[in-house]
Amino acid sequence: MNRVIETSAATGSEGLPAAWAAFVEAFDGRLAEMLSDDDLIPARLIESIRYSALAPGKRLRPFVLVRCCEAAGGRPEAAWVPAAAVECVHAFSLIHDDLPAMDDDDLRRGRPTNHRQFDEATAILAGDGLLAWAFKMLAAAPLESGCVVRLAAELADATGPAGMIGGQMLDIQHQNTPPNLDVVRRIHELKTARLFESCAKMGAICADAPPAVEDALARYGRRLGLAFQIADDLLDETSTAAEIGKRTGKDRAAGKQTYPACIGDGPSRIEARRLVDSAVRSLDGFGPEADDLRDLARRIPMRRS
Amino acid sequence: MNRVIETSAATGSEGLPAAWAAFVEAFDGRLAEMLSDDDLIPARLIESIRYSALAPGKRLRPFVLVRCCEAAGGRPEAAWVPAAAVECVHAFSLIHDDLPAMDDDDLRRGRPTNHRQFDEATAILAGDGLLAWAFKMLAAAPLESGCVVRLAAELADATGPAGMIGGQMLDIQHQNTPPNLDVVRRIHELKTARLFESCAKMGAICADAPPAVEDALARYGRRLGLAFQIADDLLDETSTAAEIGKRTGKDRAAGKQTYPACIGDGPSRIEARRLVDSAVRSLDGFGPEADDLRDLARRIPMRRS
Repeated sequence: MNRVIETSAATGSEGLPAAWAAFVEAFDGRLAEMLSDDDLIPARLIESIRYSALAPGKRLRPFVLVRCCEAAGGRPEAAWVPAAAVECVHAFSLIHDDLPAMDDDDLRRGRPTNHRQFDEATAILAGDGLLAWAFKMLAAAPLESGCVVRLAAELADATGPAGMIGGQMLDIQHQNTPPNLDVVRRIHELKTARLFESCAKMGAICADAPPAVEDALARYGRRLGLAFQIADDLLDETSTAAEIGKRTGKDRAAGKQTYPACIGDGPSRIEARRLVDSAVRSLDGFGPEADDLRDLARRIPMRRS
Repeated sequence: MNRVIETSAATGSEGLPAAWAAFVEAFDGRLAEMLSDDDLIPARLIESIRYSALAPGKRLRPFVLVRCCEAAGGRPEAAWVPAAAVECVHAFSLIHDDLPAMDDDDLRRGRPTNHRQFDEATAILAGDGLLAWAFKMLAAAPLESGCVVRLAAELADATGPAGMIGGQMLDIQHQNTPPNLDVVRRIHELKTARLFESCAKMGAICADAPPAVEDALARYGRRLGLAFQIADDLLDETSTAAEIGKRTGKDRAAGKQTYPACIGDGPSRIEARRLVDSAVRSLDGFGPEADDLRDLARRIPMRRS
């Protein structure tokens, strides 16, 4: 089995600004500790879980969560465990989305997808295991109980049938149906934007921020997520697998609902920029402690991976 | 699509003692409300979720949880939402265990399995959705925050890679390997007994019971779960599909690790009875409020479905 993950986890941070790259390195170290071996966990299962969850990545969602906590006046330390839980949920979703019964992908983050590296049963269980583990982490977070309950409610809602999982259902259902902008928006909102919004809200919850601050950050997260997904749609059309670490041109081949398919590449770029501007404006009430969040949003339309 | 579930949810309680049958009816009504429609949830996904979660069943795990809460001196009302969460986790596990990549079953609770009734992608997402929903329910339980956090930690651990999901991994890995009693015990402990133990502990947590009470109930739950799984192994060997609502003789055909395969039918029955006696003895410190739990355990070796 491929154990390259143990030594190459930092490669996901190449090309990122220094502060973000430093975050990725520190975060990956902590996540690797949290997803550590346990005599009770079957060896093949923990190997499969670590293979996907610790694969090189930009850790965009954890970064948003921790920085939103700081922007809301909280200690970053309070946000690390919730950030790890969100990354587990994200890794779960990638493993299951790639399954043969779903998008049937064989390349992810530059390496074989989980079911190609292991097998389908193991991949299903690794995804299931990561989803359960996310809530185990949250329940053990060094935070006040009321805060943990709010975080769990938020993450479960954003992940569940009215969030990311529902978005994947719509995505699958609307394959090979005529491009429809209302449908694309709904898919992107549930499948992608809801979890970004959740990261922002969870950061605010970790900081015990007042509702107005939580709302402003939630708006930022939702718009960031939508812009991110449009940029993702565009990348699938215009990049090579070597650049983004997953198969490209796949959306069109699979008859996926995407922004470019609905309104074309140029207008999609304009919409992504509009959403980014709107995301940045959501942060008008914040000072320089939100600069990383502004910078992150402005990078979205220039995404190369 | 089959909507028979809306009207036949009570049939799972046939042949149960009156108190248990009444519990099933009341519980199913509440679960159906909790798993209610929501404009945000795609119609096909909520239909698939309800198809499995509300399929007729004995609701054994919720019954154990609520009765353990009462045995520990708690109000049954405190235990209903956690009991619903556990049933969602159980339904999730049945859907995923039945998938073609796992046990490839086409009959469950007397009806087509989820992926046969819907399709594989929908079944994977319905299972994922139920797992997330379980934690959303828990987070919204009308209980004190500290109690909710303990319940979430317990359920996530019992469900995750060191619990039920890990047990399913071992079960798959050890198919078609020579029968080995140590392996069977470990699979049964993780895949089945851990969640029963968790139900008992969660009941105690809902009652805010002292550690000694929680420990006694946990012992009861673990032994009950092991006895239940051995009885399940025996049923697979000796029943018809019409009797138990799922394909039989499947364990042997699939080369599954079972008690009968390791030590034969007679000794397996003796072991199940020994575990039941031990489970009942764990309740020695309890009065008549634990009678339903004693009765339930004594029924295990006589299981016909």
